[in-house]
Amino acid sequence: MRKGLLITFEGIDGAGKTTQLLRLAAWLEAQGLPVIVTREPGGTRIGDAVRAILLDPRHQEMAPRTEALLYAASRAQHVEELIRPALARGEIVLCDRFVDASIAYQGAGLGLGEAWVEALNEYALGGLRPDLTLWFDLDWPTARSRLRARAEGGGLDRIERRDEAFFERVADAFERLWRAAPEVRKRIDAARSPDDIEQEIRALVWNLIQQHL
Amino acid sequence: MRKGLLITFEGIDGAGKTTQLLRLAAWLEAQGLPVIVTREPGGTRIGDAVRAILLDPRHQEMAPRTEALLYAASRAQHVEELIRPALARGEIVLCDRFVDASIAYQGAGLGLGEAWVEALNEYALGGLRPDLTLWFDLDWPTARSRLRARAEGGGLDRIERRDEAFFERVADAFERLWRAAPEVRKRIDAARSPDDIEQEIRALVWNLIQQHL
Repeated sequence: MRKGLLITFEGIDGAGKTTQLLRLAAWLEAQGLPVIVTREPGGTRIGDAVRAILLDPRHQEMAPRTEALLYAASRAQHVEELIRPALARGEIVLCDRFVDASIAYQGAGLGLGEAWVEALNEYALGGLRPDLTLWFDLDWPTARSRLRARAEGGGLDRIERRDEAFFERVADAFERLWRAAPEVRKRIDAARSPDDIEQEIRALVWNLIQQHL
Repeated sequence: MRKGLLITFEGIDGAGKTTQLLRLAAWLEAQGLPVIVTREPGGTRIGDAVRAILLDPRHQEMAPRTEALLYAASRAQHVEELIRPALARGEIVLCDRFVDASIAYQGAGLGLGEAWVEALNEYALGGLRPDLTLWFDLDWPTARSRLRARAEGGGLDRIERRDEAFFERVADAFERLWRAAPEVRKRIDAARSPDDIEQEIRALVWNLIQQHL
């Protein structure tokens, strides 16, 4: 029944995931392939409502468990309403953040435990896993300076306001996830030029599509 | 550290829980006892935002797992922000719906499995359990006619619109929960007059307070 491909883009804020996701989508479409672009949290009407609660800078009182459960709720809806049907139609789903983000941000960053967040998400997803995860590896000082440049004229959201130690725990967790399963997670050196990164991603994805046909 | 009491009010819609909760609160206050009245889902700013998503009649596309995770998220916030601090101050917390409602509505009603919903909530609560649960036992035809009378002039919410088989599964689950732990769950025959029910609840709660002192 499952025919499409699920490719997820992971990494700390400011690593360039979204830029590359949109470039890849445009390129795949130019090749005549059916592509859907989506993001976490959100991607559905209900998920977007949950996203608004999660990112509201006034919600400083949010408990870490609440945050993990809200991300899992948004993801459950996203998978059932959007991702599973798209995969069943044979489409290539490009998702900006997925389970690894929860394991890193809530499991490691907030200290809820990576194993527990992983188990919660197994349930939320009903066992669905990405075919390929692109991990954008960038040191936190570089990512932060990119974020600050981006934030001029706008504000940082509730998650982006956290401190350096938080983002270092998150970055370490992404690296552990990659080391645990390098066959499905590919490390992208995100300090390089956007054009170089784009070429590398095209090659990885094209290779996956060839295997999949 | 824990000094207060957590008393939860459970049962299908229309069984009279909220009326009795408010009567008990007024009586306890008249006795000079510190009382906090709260409800699920909600009870906090973040919980109320989640409640609005859950009860919106437009959200017909909500997946069952999303619903269970949103209730658990709301409850995690409710426990950390409101219930635990109140118990630590020695207050009596009266809560309109709690974990049993999730086990019955999502576990049995929506078919997610009672054991899984219970496990999810164990986590969401960090092990907190009610000191006393009052289960308002009422047959569904009576509850439905009460709900219809109440709904005149207003609409039913997304949950209240479900069919009869759904509410029968829910009612059966509440009974199983009561039979499994009758020492902490007390069955209230909700077909009786409000005054009779009020007297019974006062006696049960007074007894609990005496044991607790």
